Amino acid sequence: MSRFLIQRPLPHGGRLVERVITDKEAAKKMIKGCPSYDIKPTLHYETGVPVRNVYREIMSICYGFFSPVEGSMKQAEVERILKERRLLNEWIFPYPLVFDISEEDYKKLGVGAGDRLVLNLKGKPFAILDIEEVWRIDNPEELAHLTFGTPERNPEVVKEPFNKKHPGWVIYRSLQPVVLAGKYTIINEPKLRPPFDRFWYPPRKSREEFDRRGWRTVINHQTRNVPHVGHEFLMKCAAFTGDVEPCHGILVNAVIGVKRRGDYPDEAIVEGHEAVNKGGYIKPERHLPTIVLWDMRYGNPLESLLHGIIRQNMGCTHHMFGRDHAAVGEYYDKWATQILWTKGIPSFGFPAPPTDVPYGLDIRPQNMREFSYCPTCKEMAYSETCGHKREKLSGSFLRGMVAEGVQPPSIIMRPEVYKVIVKWWKHFGYPFCNEKYVVNKEKELEVDLEDL
Amino acid sequence: MSRFLIQRPLPHGGRLVERVITDKEAAKKMIKGCPSYDIKPTLHYETGVPVRNVYREIMSICYGFFSPVEGSMKQAEVERILKERRLLNEWIFPYPLVFDISEEDYKKLGVGAGDRLVLNLKGKPFAILDIEEVWRIDNPEELAHLTFGTPERNPEVVKEPFNKKHPGWVIYRSLQPVVLAGKYTIINEPKLRPPFDRFWYPPRKSREEFDRRGWRTVINHQTRNVPHVGHEFLMKCAAFTGDVEPCHGILVNAVIGVKRRGDYPDEAIVEGHEAVNKGGYIKPERHLPTIVLWDMRYGNPLESLLHGIIRQNMGCTHHMFGRDHAAVGEYYDKWATQILWTKGIPSFGFPAPPTDVPYGLDIRPQNMREFSYCPTCKEMAYSETCGHKREKLSGSFLRGMVAEGVQPPSIIMRPEVYKVIVKWWKHFGYPFCNEKYVVNKEKELEVDLEDL
Repeated sequence: MSRFLIQRPLPHGGRLVERVITDKEAAKKMIKGCPSYDIKPTLHYETGVPVRNVYREIMSICYGFFSPVEGSMKQAEVERILKERRLLNEWIFPYPLVFDISEEDYKKLGVGAGDRLVLNLKGKPFAILDIEEVWRIDNPEELAHLTFGTPERNPEVVKEPFNKKHPGWVIYRSLQPVVLAGKYTIINEPKLRPPFDRFWYPPRKSREEFDRRGWRTVINHQTRNVPHVGHEFLMKCAAFTGDVEPCHGILVNAVIGVKRRGDYPDEAIVEGHEAVNKGGYIKPERHLPTIVLWDMRYGNPLESLLHGIIRQNMGCTHHMFGRDHAAVGEYYDKWATQILWTKGIPSFGFPAPPTDVPYGLDIRPQNMREFSYCPTCKEMAYSETCGHKREKLSGSFLRGMVAEGVQPPSIIMRPEVYKVIVKWWKHFGYPFCNEKYVVNKEKELEVDLEDL
Repeated sequence: MSRFLIQRPLPHGGRLVERVITDKEAAKKMIKGCPSYDIKPTLHYETGVPVRNVYREIMSICYGFFSPVEGSMKQAEVERILKERRLLNEWIFPYPLVFDISEEDYKKLGVGAGDRLVLNLKGKPFAILDIEEVWRIDNPEELAHLTFGTPERNPEVVKEPFNKKHPGWVIYRSLQPVVLAGKYTIINEPKLRPPFDRFWYPPRKSREEFDRRGWRTVINHQTRNVPHVGHEFLMKCAAFTGDVEPCHGILVNAVIGVKRRGDYPDEAIVEGHEAVNKGGYIKPERHLPTIVLWDMRYGNPLESLLHGIIRQNMGCTHHMFGRDHAAVGEYYDKWATQILWTKGIPSFGFPAPPTDVPYGLDIRPQNMREFSYCPTCKEMAYSETCGHKREKLSGSFLRGMVAEGVQPPSIIMRPEVYKVIVKWWKHFGYPFCNEKYVVNKEKELEVDLEDL
């Protein structure tokens, strides 16, 4: 066979983390006599609006999306991540992930290292946290700054100091002071609610699905958007990379989590991507929309690192990265992610790309430029190919059109995708997330639990 | 830097062959007192129509397109090529290349091993052949069969016995019996005639041009056709392969040589490709149409090997291969080229792909499926992406339309390209090569020579 063939990478860290107990009797025994705690959403430190729910991290950790992370991090691990973006076991990882509670709750619980805490979700036992260390976040604002970087410390890519306009910064700024560190184990598997259930492909299942489909090479498309035709072209064009032939599969992995007002509802996002393949624009045999539960931190290059980890764990060989990947505002250089994956960012601990450092990643970047509509080529044209005057496709303009009830032309948005927007618009009363959606979503979450 | 970055390969054989004397005084000394011979076209063994001119091989050898080949092959080398597609220096090569003359001419010349023969072209000294061996082709029909393979010997890919309907087979069948083997040296550089002069990028020059343009990764498009929009899409889509970003450059390398009736004229082919970038469909900064002089043998997988050699020598990192690459008729499996580049064809001497055998190639295949027009996607859609019912774009249908004087719709052929067809149509009196064009071309060739 050709020496150029690319094989599916091992999970990050060498093996998939899977911390899910499916034997209910065993689970009951495991939690017998243990104190319990009702998981609460993290609320904005000023406005009180939900900005995160740690249950999503527990799901992503225990199902292996975040392998090799196994739980809430100890102080030394968080400090190491903030300095060099590495776990204590050496493997690279971009963000602190902690189980944080208030001083009041901590006092009430009366737990400490060595204790097993049962975590309830929607009133049902969901997971356990085997506490190994209790530590404190003394200065959440500093933690938030260190997490995302500052223009002084990270001059290669950070252009502006982070502040409360940045939703990721707000998440870290809003953490409670007491961290219970230790491994999570899910003891009562939640059921994903429709429509999310059919997009739920945790790493073991996604790898099995790739086998079933005969996909050796798979490129990931990160999304938190209903796809317009520009996204469709990004997907189908980026997928022409591969090894000796184009990538066998295109994995869409939608980040499902806390929403901002004005975002499309998650339901429309996943079904919108599905509509692209149901509509035949990308064959269903070559296209698989899936989800991961995560409250986006919008950390551009750092977020791309997490995306690389998640998709390598899911079995992808390639990951497409565009301009302003997972960015909000202009905190980072708009090509910061591509800089990371081609040269590295020394101040974040990467003197070389994350694929070229010890204990690094094994997924290939496909760094893409931009698509916009070309009236001469009569298609979504690629900035590095088409030499004509093109019309910038602004996401805001498109949303404006949708908000006015105008169906966008099919060269901009496929009618099948627009239908999905309208379906959920009717359901929620508005095409984009409003306050009611945001609050309700954090109440209902994406899962239901049965009694244990 | 990223470990995935692909660097420009060395020429095949390790270094570029360059056998061109530019010092006229030195050249004159070199040929003083040597016998000379007027190069003649090879004529069809039955019809007498020109089917090849060895001057094109001399050009391609001496300017390094065929590195490491340096001249007309000895008997042992031809035998080795027919058995295992390797030169005597071990490097892989698909075809016998010989300087063949008639018994009558041989008798008249009275030369032998050790003699230097001056080769005249269009009445002017052009090159020298330093004869190392004289041998004979006893059975040109057998040579032709061995060159292309037979269903018995090459059951993996040869479907039908070759015969006189195959233009490559006819070339070998029509060879003269006496082979003068030895190295060629051009002693009087021909001038390419317009419009071919501006497409002339021999390997040293093409590599310098890639440097000038900052192209690290370059994908080649093989052509012997005026490009329709399907070709344009093949080029721009295949170029999304690369390493950590799409290929920097797209090299079009048109095979210029003896024509068959019904082919587009070479002038329209090169200017048609140029019109694609002048028209902005692929930016001129990213697209470079060039030529190589060669009378196509249409050897599908074997021809693809030569194409890989030529384009590696020119500095390409990638080469696109489609269905029926360089094929005529149904002699070979229509995917034979992709079989060669992904698995190898043991009976042709390739138990592994040509990139995976010792002394093999170092250029990456991009094996592509098919493009055809999709009325739903409203574009040339890729067979592995688009799930709709598409309209096969038949080259013959398009030629039929052109022959009727009907301008094809712009979604099938760009108006700028059609204009080029019309320009040369007016010049030659017919849009496709006719008998007059074929005969004239072989009289005038693509070059002019000055006095030495």
